[in-house]
This record gives sequence, structure tokens and C-alpha cells, in this order.
Amino acid sequence: MNTTIAENQTPSVITSSDLLNHWQGHRSLTRRAIEAFPEKDFFEFSVGGMRPFAAMVKELLAIAAPGLRQIATGSTEELKEDLDQLNTKAAVLAAWDETTAEINQYWAQIPDEKFKEKIVTFGQYEGTVWSSIFYFIDNEIHHRAQGYVFLRALGIEPPYFWER
Amino acid sequence: MNTTIAENQTPSVITSSDLLNHWQGHRSLTRRAIEAFPEKDFFEFSVGGMRPFAAMVKELLAIAAPGLRQIATGSTEELKEDLDQLNTKAAVLAAWDETTAEINQYWAQIPDEKFKEKIVTFGQYEGTVWSSIFYFIDNEIHHRAQGYVFLRALGIEPPYFWER
Repeated sequence: MNTTIAENQTPSVITSSDLLNHWQGHRSLTRRAIEAFPEKDFFEFSVGGMRPFAAMVKELLAIAAPGLRQIATGSTEELKEDLDQLNTKAAVLAAWDETTAEINQYWAQIPDEKFKEKIVTFGQYEGTVWSSIFYFIDNEIHHRAQGYVFLRALGIEPPYFWER
Repeated sequence: MNTTIAENQTPSVITSSDLLNHWQGHRSLTRRAIEAFPEKDFFEFSVGGMRPFAAMVKELLAIAAPGLRQIATGSTEELKEDLDQLNTKAAVLAAWDETTAEINQYWAQIPDEKFKEKIVTFGQYEGTVWSSIFYFIDNEIHHRAQGYVFLRALGIEPPYFWER
């Protein structure tokens, strides 16, 4: 019996709880990047015709909790980035903190063996559970870094990348 | 004996080879971002007083192969970002491709059980092997995304983020 477990278990690189802490550490940094923006610039400023940082953050909010809810519960989720009610930094930060709690809640419902299962998130993105979660995290790092350039263009020093 | 293995093995979220492929996929995208820059702008253009993208890419080159060499072989490594000889895009891309091969070579020398070991990379950055490698990858995503904003500011469409 134990032989079977050992043989079936792929070798570990990172544990589920380490990955959750890694993501929440990144999310804590993204929260500080949001806070660093002046209210108006968060919703309006951009470089090179890009979306303002608020629109990117709404995308991150649209992905994180709904994406994990699908993974944890098998629910059907739509990508709803059009979060018009989040029209102040305070409202966005409150939604960010709600998402933090929801991520912890759904994460606790994902058994370790599920990470290698195939999934189609938001009805269209094919991958495994782990690759989907990595995409959520990588996409957050990507857009936050774009927000960092916006902050620099505004003459504002962003939070240190390595402080989580 | 197998009981011991099963008990000691933390549950798997991602395998070592999946993580290598994930990183090399990101590196392939970063390579295309480098290619997208006009020669002069790669070395000179920036936004908000930031370093040009070439300087960021040299940082990535200074980290990737030397960092993995330390992890794989226990060598002592210094962070040498001052890669003056890489003064054309062609030279940078050649160094990028050499690094691709070196990463594969060193990765093959890292046994699975090593990922949870503690390490101090470049004589100063404390973490585990997995957290160090995740830092290398996250830092690449971060700087590449800043390069994406530079490309947009230059009126150039960056490669699709999701194509690896």
C-alpha cells in the first residue's frame, strides 16, 4: 500500500501551502502598489495607450476568487472584468481584501491530488489546475510590473519587489 | 522503507520537469520580447527614468545560469550584471540561448529532495531552493512586463503574454 503511494506520488517541488503563501505574498505587494497610486491616476493614468492600472486590477479580481472557486467547487464561472461599482481606490482595496479571504477559503478545499487534473477555466482556458493557478499568479506579476512603470512615470517610487 | 518515503514526501503540486518547462516557456517569451525591440531602443529607451530593457535582461542573464549553477553544484557565485560585452541584440540573444542550455544542464543535476533545502544565493539572498528559483522566474516576468510597457510606448505590439 505504501509502495503504491510512493510510486504514484510525483516528487515534490513546492507544497500546496507554500504556493498559497507565495501567491498571497504577491497579492500583498500588489495591494501596496494600488495604495501607492494617487486616486485619480489609478483610474486614468497610463503609458503608451495601455489600460489604466485600475482596469488591470479589476481583471486580477475577476480571475482570482472566481477561478479558484471553479477549481475548488467545480462551479461554472464567467470572466466578469466589468466591475463598474469599484470606482474608488477604497472600494478596490476592500474587494482585494475580500478576495484574499476567499482565496484562503477555496484553497483549503483543493486536495493535493487535484493539482495535476485537467481543467478549462472560465469556459475557455485549457490547462491543469497547477498551470491555471500559475497563470493567475504570473498574470498578476505581469500587470503589477506594468503598474510599476506607470508609478515611475508619475515620479512615484513603487514598493520593493522583494518585500512580500 | 517505502513507508518512510511516503511519509517524508510532501504532496506534489508541480513536478521538477513541469517547473523547468514553465520557466523555459517564460524565457522563450522574454526572448521574443527582446527581438521585438529596435536595436537602439533596446539599449537606450526607457520610461520614467528606469533602466533600458537591455540592462534588465543583463540582470536576468546574471541570475539564471549562475544561480542554478550554485543550486546544482554548490559553487560560490557573484551577481555580475555588468555584461559590457553584450552590446548588440545579437550578442544578448546568443547569451540567452547559451543560458537556455545551461539551465537544462544544471536542472538535471538537482535532485527532487533538494528543492526544500535552505540556500543563500549570490552570497546574500536567503531562501529555499524552490523559493530562489521562483524568485528568478517572478523577477523575469516582472522585468519583461516593464519591457512590454516600453514597447507600447514605442508604438510596438509586444508578443502575446499567454504564448510560451
